[in-house]
Amino acid sequence: MLKSVTSICNMRFNRRSLLFLLVLCTFMICFSFWSRCILNPETSDLNRKLIADGRTNGDFDNVHFVNRGAKNYNAPVNEMEIPSSNLQEIECEINREYSVQCRKDNNEVYLPFSFIQKYFEVYGEFENIEGYEKFEFSHSYSEVHHPPDVIRPDGAFMSFEHYNVEIRKRVKCITAVEGVPISTQWEPAGHYYPIQIAQFALSHYSKYLKEGEPDQIPLLNSERDVGMWLKGGNVNIKSVWSKTRRSQVVEFQSSDSLSNAGFYTMMKETSNFAVTFDFKIVSNGSISLTLKNDAVTFHLHYVFSDTLITCDGKNIYYGLGENRRGDWIHFARDADMDLLKGLSLKCSKYRKLGRLTLLGITIRGHGWLDNVTVSSAAHMDHFFNAANWFVTHQDSRGGWPIMVTRKLISGVMELQPGWYSAMAQGHGISTLVRAYLKSKNTVYLRTAINALKIFEISSAQGGVKARFANSYNWYEEYPTTPSSFVLNGFIFSLFGLYDLKEIATGEPLEKVTQLYEEGIKSLKAMLLMYDSGFGTFYDLRHVSAGLAPNRARWDYHTVHISQLLQLSKMEDEPLFTRTVKRWQDYMKGVRSPHN
Amino acid sequence: MLKSVTSICNMRFNRRSLLFLLVLCTFMICFSFWSRCILNPETSDLNRKLIADGRTNGDFDNVHFVNRGAKNYNAPVNEMEIPSSNLQEIECEINREYSVQCRKDNNEVYLPFSFIQKYFEVYGEFENIEGYEKFEFSHSYSEVHHPPDVIRPDGAFMSFEHYNVEIRKRVKCITAVEGVPISTQWEPAGHYYPIQIAQFALSHYSKYLKEGEPDQIPLLNSERDVGMWLKGGNVNIKSVWSKTRRSQVVEFQSSDSLSNAGFYTMMKETSNFAVTFDFKIVSNGSISLTLKNDAVTFHLHYVFSDTLITCDGKNIYYGLGENRRGDWIHFARDADMDLLKGLSLKCSKYRKLGRLTLLGITIRGHGWLDNVTVSSAAHMDHFFNAANWFVTHQDSRGGWPIMVTRKLISGVMELQPGWYSAMAQGHGISTLVRAYLKSKNTVYLRTAINALKIFEISSAQGGVKARFANSYNWYEEYPTTPSSFVLNGFIFSLFGLYDLKEIATGEPLEKVTQLYEEGIKSLKAMLLMYDSGFGTFYDLRHVSAGLAPNRARWDYHTVHISQLLQLSKMEDEPLFTRTVKRWQDYMKGVRSPHN
Repeated sequence: MLKSVTSICNMRFNRRSLLFLLVLCTFMICFSFWSRCILNPETSDLNRKLIADGRTNGDFDNVHFVNRGAKNYNAPVNEMEIPSSNLQEIECEINREYSVQCRKDNNEVYLPFSFIQKYFEVYGEFENIEGYEKFEFSHSYSEVHHPPDVIRPDGAFMSFEHYNVEIRKRVKCITAVEGVPISTQWEPAGHYYPIQIAQFALSHYSKYLKEGEPDQIPLLNSERDVGMWLKGGNVNIKSVWSKTRRSQVVEFQSSDSLSNAGFYTMMKETSNFAVTFDFKIVSNGSISLTLKNDAVTFHLHYVFSDTLITCDGKNIYYGLGENRRGDWIHFARDADMDLLKGLSLKCSKYRKLGRLTLLGITIRGHGWLDNVTVSSAAHMDHFFNAANWFVTHQDSRGGWPIMVTRKLISGVMELQPGWYSAMAQGHGISTLVRAYLKSKNTVYLRTAINALKIFEISSAQGGVKARFANSYNWYEEYPTTPSSFVLNGFIFSLFGLYDLKEIATGEPLEKVTQLYEEGIKSLKAMLLMYDSGFGTFYDLRHVSAGLAPNRARWDYHTVHISQLLQLSKMEDEPLFTRTVKRWQDYMKGVRSPHN
Repeated sequence: MLKSVTSICNMRFNRRSLLFLLVLCTFMICFSFWSRCILNPETSDLNRKLIADGRTNGDFDNVHFVNRGAKNYNAPVNEMEIPSSNLQEIECEINREYSVQCRKDNNEVYLPFSFIQKYFEVYGEFENIEGYEKFEFSHSYSEVHHPPDVIRPDGAFMSFEHYNVEIRKRVKCITAVEGVPISTQWEPAGHYYPIQIAQFALSHYSKYLKEGEPDQIPLLNSERDVGMWLKGGNVNIKSVWSKTRRSQVVEFQSSDSLSNAGFYTMMKETSNFAVTFDFKIVSNGSISLTLKNDAVTFHLHYVFSDTLITCDGKNIYYGLGENRRGDWIHFARDADMDLLKGLSLKCSKYRKLGRLTLLGITIRGHGWLDNVTVSSAAHMDHFFNAANWFVTHQDSRGGWPIMVTRKLISGVMELQPGWYSAMAQGHGISTLVRAYLKSKNTVYLRTAINALKIFEISSAQGGVKARFANSYNWYEEYPTTPSSFVLNGFIFSLFGLYDLKEIATGEPLEKVTQLYEEGIKSLKAMLLMYDSGFGTFYDLRHVSAGLAPNRARWDYHTVHISQLLQLSKMEDEPLFTRTVKRWQDYMKGVRSPHN
C-alpha cells in the first residue's frame, strides 16, 4: 500500500498537482484503514429479530396469563461469517462433545447467547430505551401474580383476574345455549371441560371484583327508548306488560328471514362489546350483532339451532338451542369474542379481527325484548352462566364427568371418557360457593356439597382419591393408575374445599373439614417432593411410574408460587412461607445449596 | 486530521520537501488508524490464570477420587478496562437485578464466562495443544468410574480401586498399632471412623485385584541375606529357629537408643515404599525408616508408645503400642504415606514431600526379625489390618459405634457419640466377607453376620432403621430424627447385605436376604425422589425436615451413578438402567423434560 502511494508521488508534478495527489493519497489511506477498522456495514445492521416461539401458551389446566409468551432469541444463521476482529475467535468445546465459536479478550472468554439460551433454557431480548440498547437476560419467562390479601370464599379467586380463559385457542367458543366455553383440548370436536368452565367463571368473577361495575349504555330500558330504534319493512312494535317479568317489555313482530332488516339499533361502539338483554321469541326469529373492522363488516347471528357455531362468508351463526324457542332467555355476549371465535373456524376465510366497531343490534321474528344494554363487560353474567352449568350438569355421584380420553402419558397414564377430576370438583365448588354467597340461592350450596362425594372415592373405583406410599390422601387432577400426583390441581381442589369449609354448617362442614385437613396434611408431607432445587416438578410421575421427572415449565412454576402464597394466608404454616420464598428465588437462577 | 494535513501541505515547498511531507503524512495517518485498530498490547497479553479452587476434595463419606479437583476459572479483575473495539460493548441486565458487560456482534450477544460460570455453576479452562488454544467448557468436574463387569462378593468393591483413602487430609495417619486410618472428620483429635476404615480396606483390596501381586524386593528372607545388612557398634546378629513362626529368623541385639545405628540396610528406592516384615522386640527398641527428598533427610521412628504420631524436627514418631513389646508384630507401612502424614502435623516445620527416596531400614534393641521386604504396595496387608479391626472393635450389638458428634444439620439433625451407621455396617460386612473368602477364617464371617443386628433396630432406639412414610424401610447412614435418607450410604449398606447374602447359609441367609430385599424394594420406590431433573439430591432432608433440597455435588452424583451401574448388574431392574442413563446425561447439561 505505502509502496504504491510513494510510486504515484514519485512522478514529476507541479505544486498544485502535488497538493491534489497528497490529499488524494491521504483519502485513499484513510479509506483503506477505515474499511478494515469499522464493522462490515452489512453485519452492523442491527435488525434484531425476536420471534415469539411456537410454544402453545397457557396449555396448563386452563390457567393462562393473557399477555405472556416465551420470547425466543433468534440467533443469526451466519454468525461464523463475522470477520475476525480484535476480540479473537476461540473454539469452546462443550463437554468434549461439540464446539461453539466463542470470543476471547484478555483473560475473559465470551460465549454466544444463542448457545447459552438453548443449553441453559434461558431467555433474552434486546431492549432499546431512547437509543440506549441493552440486552435483557431472563431466567424465566413467566410472572408471579399475587393472590388477594385476605382469602375469603366470596373474594377474588387466587389471581384469576389476570386470566382470560375464552381467548385461548383451545376454547372453541362460548356456547349461545348455556354461555359456557367449549374446549377442544384432547378432543377437537369440542367438549364441556368443567375445569375450563370454572376458570371462565372464576376469572370473570375476579375481574368483576377488581374492575367494579362495568360501563353500561342502556339501549332499550323503557318505552321511550323505542323511538331510538329503527324498523325495517313490516315491523310492528308495541310496549306490553309481561307477567313473567313483572315489567313493561317491547313486543316486536317482523319476518323471521335473516335478510329482513327487523327491529334494530345503530351505534358506533369501539370500547364496549358486551351486549346483554332478555328476550323471548316464539317464531323462528333471530338476533344479529353487526361488527366492522377497517376492511370488513361481519354479522353474528344467534339462531334457534342446535349447531354450536358455524360460518358463511362474513356471517357467523351461533346456535341458541332448537328447543329454547318460546323461553325467556338472558342474552349476554361479548361480541368481539364471538367474532374472534367465528374467525377461528375453518369455514371462515377471514382471520384478522382488526380494530373493531360494534355497529348494531337487530331482532327478527315475533317476540318480546327487555333491558338491552351495551357494556364494557358482562362478567357476572358469564359467571352465573357457568355456575348454572355446574348445577345443571352435576351427575348422581356429585361429579362433573369429563367425556374425553386423557392420555397423561400414552400407554402408561390414561383416562377413559367419564373420568372425574378433583380439580374440576374443587373449582366447581369455588364457583358454586361464590354463586351462593352472591345470589343466596341455596341450589348452588347444595350442588357444592354434593361435589364432595367424589373426593372420597378412590381413583381405582372411578373417583379422584389417590394414596401416596399408602400414607397420604391425594386428590387427583388426573386420577390415573399409577397415580400422577399433579401438584397444582391438588392445591386447587384444596382451595375449593377451603371455600366450602368457610361457609358450610352441620354434617357437610364436618365432611369438608376432614377432607381439607387430610389434604393439607398430605401437602405438608409431600410439598417438597416437588422441589427440584432449581424449580418445581409438575407431578410425581417419576416417583410413581419410574419415569424422568416432569419439570414444571415456568408458567406452571408461577402457578405453584401463587398457590403457595395463597396457602400461606390460609394456613399458619412456616413451611409454605419458607418454601415460596425459595421457589421465587429459583426464577432468578438461584439454586438450593449442594452438599 | 485531514484539515491539519492540508494546512501543512499548503505551505510553499520544493518537490523534495513535498515528497518528504507526503510520505510523513501518510505514515502519520497510517499510525493514527493503526493505533485505533489493533488490540491494546497490554490487553492482548494472553496470560491465562487457571487456579484450582479451595474446594475440599473427596469430603464425601470418605469416598475420594485421587486426581480430581474442581478447576475454577479465574476471571480477570479489570475486565472493564478493555478498550472499546469492533465487538461493541453492551450491557446485559440479569433478571432486572444487576448488569454484566457483554459484547455484541451483528445479531449475536456474547456473555462473559466469568458470569456464566458463577451463575450456572459450570466449569471451564483453557487448553493449549501444540500452540492451538481452545476453551474447555465442562458441565461437571467429576468423572464416573465403572464397577466390575460381574459383581462378586470376592470381587473389587464398586470402583474403589480409584480411591485413595489415606491421602485425604482428614486422615490423620495410619495407626502403627492396628494399621488403620484415624479420622479427624468432625473431631480434630481423631477417632476411628468405621466407614473410613472399611473404605481403606476395600480400596486396597480392589487395587490389589486390579494391580496384581506387587513388585517385591526381599531384603532379609534367609540367613544369607544377613550379610547384605550393616551393623552399628555393639550389635550382635544370629540366625535362630522360631517355634512360633516355624522358621529361621534373625535375632538381633543392640542398644535401644535411637542414636544407635542398630542393625540396618541401605538402599536407594525411588518407586517402592511399602516396607513389610515380622518382628518381635523384647527391649525398648525401635524401627526406623529413612527417607530423603531433594533437600532433607527424614526419619520415621516406630516406637513402643501409645502416642499415635508426633514429630521433632526431621524425626516423626509412630506409636507401636506400649503393651505390644514382646509380641510378634506384622509391620506393613507405606513409608511415603507415613512421612506425608508426619509432615502434615502442626509440630512439623517441613511441608513439602518432594521427590522421595527410601534410603534405609534400621532395627534397634533386642528382638527377632523375618521376611523384610520392600514392595510397590502392601494392599493385602492394609486390607487385613482393617478387616481385623472390624473383628476386634465390634460391640455386643454387632455394631461399630462412632464416637463423635455428627451434626448433619445443626440443631435439626444431630447424632450424639455412639451412633451407628448402616453404611459402616454394610461396608464392614463387605470388608469381612472378602476377608473370609480370602482367608477362610470363619471369624470374619461370624463378625459379618453379627453386624446384621443393627439393621433391625430403629433409629429412635439407637439403630439405623428408618421408615419413609411409614411404608419403606431405609438403612440410614446417619440415623437422625427426623430421618435424613442419605442415598449413597443406603446403597452402600445394600452392597454389604448383597455380599453377605451371596455367601451366607441357613438362618443368616434368610435374615440377610430379607433385609436386602426390603432395602431393594424401598430403593425402587424411592430412587426417583433423588432425581432433581438435572442432577440428584444427596438426601431427603427437604422432604423429612421441610428444608431446602440438598443437591448432591458432582462427585456425589458420580457416586450415585457408579452405584446405579452396580445395581443394574445386581438386579434385573429396568428402573436402574433407565435412570442411570439419565443421570449420566445430567452431567452433560441435559435436563429431564418439562411439561
